[in-house]
Amino acid sequence: MSCNVPKTDKKRVVIVGGGFGGLKLAQKLKKSNFQVVLVDKNNYHQFPPLIYQVASSGIEPSSIAFPFRRIFQKRKDFYFRLAEVKSIMPEKNMIQTSIGKLSYDYLVLASGTTTNFFGNKEIEENSIPMKTLSESMGLRNALLDNFERALTCASPQERQELLNVVIVGGGATGVEIAGALSEMKNFVLPKDYPDLPNSLMNIYLIESQDRLLSAMSQKSSDNVLKYLRSMGVNVLLNQRVTDYKDHIVYINDGSTIATRTFIWVTGVTAQVVGQMPADKVGRGGRILVDAYNRVKGMDNVFSIGDQCLMLDADPQWKGGHPQLAQPAIQQGNLLASNLKRLEKGKKLKPFRYKNLGSMATVGRNKAVAEFAGMKMGGFFAWLMWLVVHLRSILGVRNKFIVFFNWMINYFSYGQSLRLIIYAKKAKEVVEREKRLAQTHV
Amino acid sequence: MSCNVPKTDKKRVVIVGGGFGGLKLAQKLKKSNFQVVLVDKNNYHQFPPLIYQVASSGIEPSSIAFPFRRIFQKRKDFYFRLAEVKSIMPEKNMIQTSIGKLSYDYLVLASGTTTNFFGNKEIEENSIPMKTLSESMGLRNALLDNFERALTCASPQERQELLNVVIVGGGATGVEIAGALSEMKNFVLPKDYPDLPNSLMNIYLIESQDRLLSAMSQKSSDNVLKYLRSMGVNVLLNQRVTDYKDHIVYINDGSTIATRTFIWVTGVTAQVVGQMPADKVGRGGRILVDAYNRVKGMDNVFSIGDQCLMLDADPQWKGGHPQLAQPAIQQGNLLASNLKRLEKGKKLKPFRYKNLGSMATVGRNKAVAEFAGMKMGGFFAWLMWLVVHLRSILGVRNKFIVFFNWMINYFSYGQSLRLIIYAKKAKEVVEREKRLAQTHV
Repeated sequence: MSCNVPKTDKKRVVIVGGGFGGLKLAQKLKKSNFQVVLVDKNNYHQFPPLIYQVASSGIEPSSIAFPFRRIFQKRKDFYFRLAEVKSIMPEKNMIQTSIGKLSYDYLVLASGTTTNFFGNKEIEENSIPMKTLSESMGLRNALLDNFERALTCASPQERQELLNVVIVGGGATGVEIAGALSEMKNFVLPKDYPDLPNSLMNIYLIESQDRLLSAMSQKSSDNVLKYLRSMGVNVLLNQRVTDYKDHIVYINDGSTIATRTFIWVTGVTAQVVGQMPADKVGRGGRILVDAYNRVKGMDNVFSIGDQCLMLDADPQWKGGHPQLAQPAIQQGNLLASNLKRLEKGKKLKPFRYKNLGSMATVGRNKAVAEFAGMKMGGFFAWLMWLVVHLRSILGVRNKFIVFFNWMINYFSYGQSLRLIIYAKKAKEVVEREKRLAQTHV
Repeated sequence: MSCNVPKTDKKRVVIVGGGFGGLKLAQKLKKSNFQVVLVDKNNYHQFPPLIYQVASSGIEPSSIAFPFRRIFQKRKDFYFRLAEVKSIMPEKNMIQTSIGKLSYDYLVLASGTTTNFFGNKEIEENSIPMKTLSESMGLRNALLDNFERALTCASPQERQELLNVVIVGGGATGVEIAGALSEMKNFVLPKDYPDLPNSLMNIYLIESQDRLLSAMSQKSSDNVLKYLRSMGVNVLLNQRVTDYKDHIVYINDGSTIATRTFIWVTGVTAQVVGQMPADKVGRGGRILVDAYNRVKGMDNVFSIGDQCLMLDADPQWKGGHPQLAQPAIQQGNLLASNLKRLEKGKKLKPFRYKNLGSMATVGRNKAVAEFAGMKMGGFFAWLMWLVVHLRSILGVRNKFIVFFNWMINYFSYGQSLRLIIYAKKAKEVVEREKRLAQTHV
């Protein structure tokens, strides 16, 4: 195997990861003098802001997944490679991937983050994370499956385990999935499962700090707490989950909750890059970069988005930037022009984060939004927020279908998407996955 | 576990399988005096006529899968149970399912058919069938995956294996998937994989008889053959595949084809019902029924659709009915009224199949249609055909989305659906599946 990218006289920019940052960078390098190679372990860009809606059967997976080859159709000097990056060899200007070595003139690490289990193997094995589309589809299937089984299980205790949902982590994801599930409880269950009292479904949201959405204002935290409680979500603040074993969640105050649906959305850690010197890795496993997103002490290796940490460079954000879509998009944007400047021997522009605000939606018509200046109702805030983030990356069709599905869902609670379905893996695929898992690099 | 269906004073009709026949029957028993229990191993009805489009990334899985609970919302005296039926106990008026025993007053077996591998274990293990939505999603993933790997694989020979597609079986499914894949080759590959010469992709369709679509007229067979060959499909007639080992397809004339995508769509066999006496099973494993779809020698057990075989009863169809949607729908329809007649002690009506014709589509704008009397162009024939079959089963939203997606696909070749994606199975689910697989009945 080899990555099989033709050598040309153009300099090669290898982008690892096609999230918000990597995708924006690749797009902005159009009409540049670079050969661009995008490496991602999926063949699509996924749109995290709506992943919770896939989990709650509100929206199609394909409505928030956009094939890279579709996005970059007809693009010159562009190559996509479906592969996992194992390690970097800066001294050789090369990376090692699951499909072979790849050399670069400029390397940009943009692989984002992964779920942080804080070293607890039990939790890692038994919880359901919600970071990827694949995980959220798994959660959807598991939820629906548990409803079905709750109808026919042997004991009342098992039924309660099947209907209790415990969400750990009061950030945007936790808040949004809690809201979506409580609407499922209140509007979907009574219709779809008339012989299953929906009062039996209990949704717990556990947060270790004293407020939800700690990244937002106290007012937003208070509002979200009020919203969720009014919707019947059991919000536990100042509580830490210590373990999850045999369908039991253990909380630091000694209490326990029995559940088969244990959703783990508290904290992330940057994707690890093999052979990255320890002195270049900071808090949360994030790669330390300078004001130009250049990895400390390297001159042709960069990192952008959630995966990197820019300390003391951006006056307003000396502690580093929040791990959100906007910093990634803005860094991808700037890096594109900085790479062109480098080639022209021009002076690079330092990164200055322009905070476009943030928001979290609770169910269909409640949201907390913090936009510079603006004040908006939940629904419009939400729509605007979507537009802002969809604008740059999507083809007309996708944009249309996202909205189409979302509106349908808005009025029908996505009543036709509640399918328990897994794609059957061809033997050939299963065996290759085994082989790949075994290859040590 | 127990099926947990409340006993009422109403007589209970248990329907096994929610395909065209079972679904129609359940719908027609609305406003009857029966308690209806529908048992299916999926929580959705799947729409086979478009399954090949899911495989070729033309349409959403959710566009042709319709959750039973959605279809039967607000329905009185109706119960859906997600379970597999293991065996029948006619002497006890009971069935054994994966979630426990269930008693019935009337039992209707409508589980349809499954892929027939004619006892060849190698082929069963290594081929990709296309009978279920899950299988067709798996095929979609495998196809796209192979394109990606073809770009980076080690040897020209491996590349050829990855790009060759062999379809065994020249019935409607084989013809339709061959047509869809040749359009993928001609219109999608060049755009999505500019660095992969699409001429390298070879599509083979192998049929053991001397013509395709042997269920249709010679003229239709000739047309379809002409269409497919003009689209560059290698159609091999009078050839039998004898084996598939180590990526090599062995054909009875001694020739071989190397491929990693071996699609097996030749022949089906009726789903087996445990404990069904051998003397009640006929050709193709189909359950022998009388003119009223009653299982020979049983008075409260019926079978409809592909799973049953009605010999010598229907004057025009003494050899049994074709295994298509229409006979199933019409039998479900009639059985609903016959069950009501039984209750009123009235004389039952014998089944008479009204042939509404059949069709097969080749790509986007070629089709062969044989409708009683009618003559139609491919596209309109196709649309009409869809309407006929969607009409009875779908909610407005679904009908709309099927057409919406299908039209989009028709003009864009479903460019945004080419996602390689598998739902991640929660550990809980994996373990239960293991347990279920182990339970012997």
